[in-house]
Amino acid sequence: MKPIVQCVPNFSEGCDLDKIERIVAPLKNQPGFTLVSYEPDKDYNRTVVTLLGDPESMIEPLLKSIEITANEIDLNHQCGEHPRMGAIDVLPFIPIQNITMETCVDYAKRIGKLIYDRFQIPVFLYAEAAQEARRKKLPNIRKGEFEGMKEKIKHPDWHPDFGTAEMHPTAGVIGVGARLPLIAYNIDLDTMDLSIAKQISKAIRGSSGGFKHVQAGPVCLEERKHTQVTMNILNYKQNPLYRIYETVKMEAKRYGVHVTGSEVVGLIPQDTLMASLEYYGAVEQFSVKENTELQWIVQASIQYLKLRDFNASKIIEANL
Amino acid sequence: MKPIVQCVPNFSEGCDLDKIERIVAPLKNQPGFTLVSYEPDKDYNRTVVTLLGDPESMIEPLLKSIEITANEIDLNHQCGEHPRMGAIDVLPFIPIQNITMETCVDYAKRIGKLIYDRFQIPVFLYAEAAQEARRKKLPNIRKGEFEGMKEKIKHPDWHPDFGTAEMHPTAGVIGVGARLPLIAYNIDLDTMDLSIAKQISKAIRGSSGGFKHVQAGPVCLEERKHTQVTMNILNYKQNPLYRIYETVKMEAKRYGVHVTGSEVVGLIPQDTLMASLEYYGAVEQFSVKENTELQWIVQASIQYLKLRDFNASKIIEANL
Repeated sequence: MKPIVQCVPNFSEGCDLDKIERIVAPLKNQPGFTLVSYEPDKDYNRTVVTLLGDPESMIEPLLKSIEITANEIDLNHQCGEHPRMGAIDVLPFIPIQNITMETCVDYAKRIGKLIYDRFQIPVFLYAEAAQEARRKKLPNIRKGEFEGMKEKIKHPDWHPDFGTAEMHPTAGVIGVGARLPLIAYNIDLDTMDLSIAKQISKAIRGSSGGFKHVQAGPVCLEERKHTQVTMNILNYKQNPLYRIYETVKMEAKRYGVHVTGSEVVGLIPQDTLMASLEYYGAVEQFSVKENTELQWIVQASIQYLKLRDFNASKIIEANL
Repeated sequence: MKPIVQCVPNFSEGCDLDKIERIVAPLKNQPGFTLVSYEPDKDYNRTVVTLLGDPESMIEPLLKSIEITANEIDLNHQCGEHPRMGAIDVLPFIPIQNITMETCVDYAKRIGKLIYDRFQIPVFLYAEAAQEARRKKLPNIRKGEFEGMKEKIKHPDWHPDFGTAEMHPTAGVIGVGARLPLIAYNIDLDTMDLSIAKQISKAIRGSSGGFKHVQAGPVCLEERKHTQVTMNILNYKQNPLYRIYETVKMEAKRYGVHVTGSEVVGLIPQDTLMASLEYYGAVEQFSVKENTELQWIVQASIQYLKLRDFNASKIIEANL
């Protein structure tokens, strides 16, 4: 069996769709992996690209895409809501099947070295690929962003893992890493009162005493006319979706607010959904073991977690 | 207004009731503070004593009780379920009213010095009184227990804060500290299946990804014929009772198990109960602000948290 990774490069352009097409072009229709999605965000001025497949096949197409990006994006003239330190801001490898985290770290190091050798963009290794404790968390590396990196990189603490202490003048630096899959999960609240979403976020997120692996914050969706608790779940085995969803429902009650839906951004491993369906199966007395077709999983997830805009293509295994 | 602290010395004797009476005798009917309770536990072979009042008045009676304990308990011939390193194992000061944590730390240091000077029992300062990071957590100090302390105390890392590197031959050492109040809270499950209590404990406790300040484990109450999730809540402001109680109810559902009650061991600050009643008030539409008499708080807490064996004397403020 071939090894399968998910690779999620983030590019610092979310508005100019022609430019984005040129950046992702080398990643389309390649042997060995699939371009699952690319999601430009105007407010963030950022595009999140999801690849799935054999990491070996991704290396050269990724390098081609990075070369184009370095020519197309000049961070001296870029701004957006999302913090960034590079034209290609981050490039994480995520083990999915038949591959260990160690091998993902090896791929991160290999492409990291090639990125500097070919394009002179300095590379920081982060998450599981980090070679120092302070570089584990990406925000520590990115602090100061593109504008601050010019000076920061000269400090001995912040010399890059590949490259000299000299930022690329237009493309900045890149964070290349390896990490476990994280789930981007948002829960909809039928209120426009952001302070309620904020209180609920505080109740559930690890940093203020809630579930350890949940990062959460409030967001107002102006066009959809409601608020959200927006989350990253860094360990979905210890913090399953159903527990977060039910706790948010419980907290929302005190504000007289209802949970009207939830959504998964990007991909989700099938076993995350199964773990939550097992809870609802035990409570509502249906069997999950006998129901493992993808379409059943999708329908049950929509029913019990009120997932919206959800279909089989969001499940990692459906893309293999 | 006089300063009020809670002081909770733990003595390593839970069986010999006559001995326990001699140990607590100097703490009874003293001016300036109240002996709220003393709770011997046979399985633990340990007695938890709760004092409430002016710390200044507690010093001499505590020293008298410690002197008696050092004569009565020989740890070379003591065993029980609870880990211990001293005949008087721990002595924490907890700020309640009109007193800062800093002042509680000062009291811990003062009595710590006196304990060594008078009885040659070495003292380790812990929690907020700790003078080194590794001594913040009591279990770090206590690791190895009485039996291991003889050697451990000679290592430069583990010299006591008061005294020489020589353990008291029968009374061991004492941990003296200052800390925030913690809530000992247990939730009853109508099952004898300990594995269910274990799964639920894992779901909610900080160490396995749950609520950050909750320590939880499963217990089987043979005589009461049910199991419990037994907890210490180290920060009840970030992890309020109602959130833990409702989450345990939610988790119990998947096992077809019911939460039949809950209990507070020792004392509980009034604002802990109020914070939970505010949740139920918002959900059930009753006003908490207008209901602040102690008797109402007790009744409502029994109703909404199914507290058993609960009455006003369990509330710290009722003892002032």
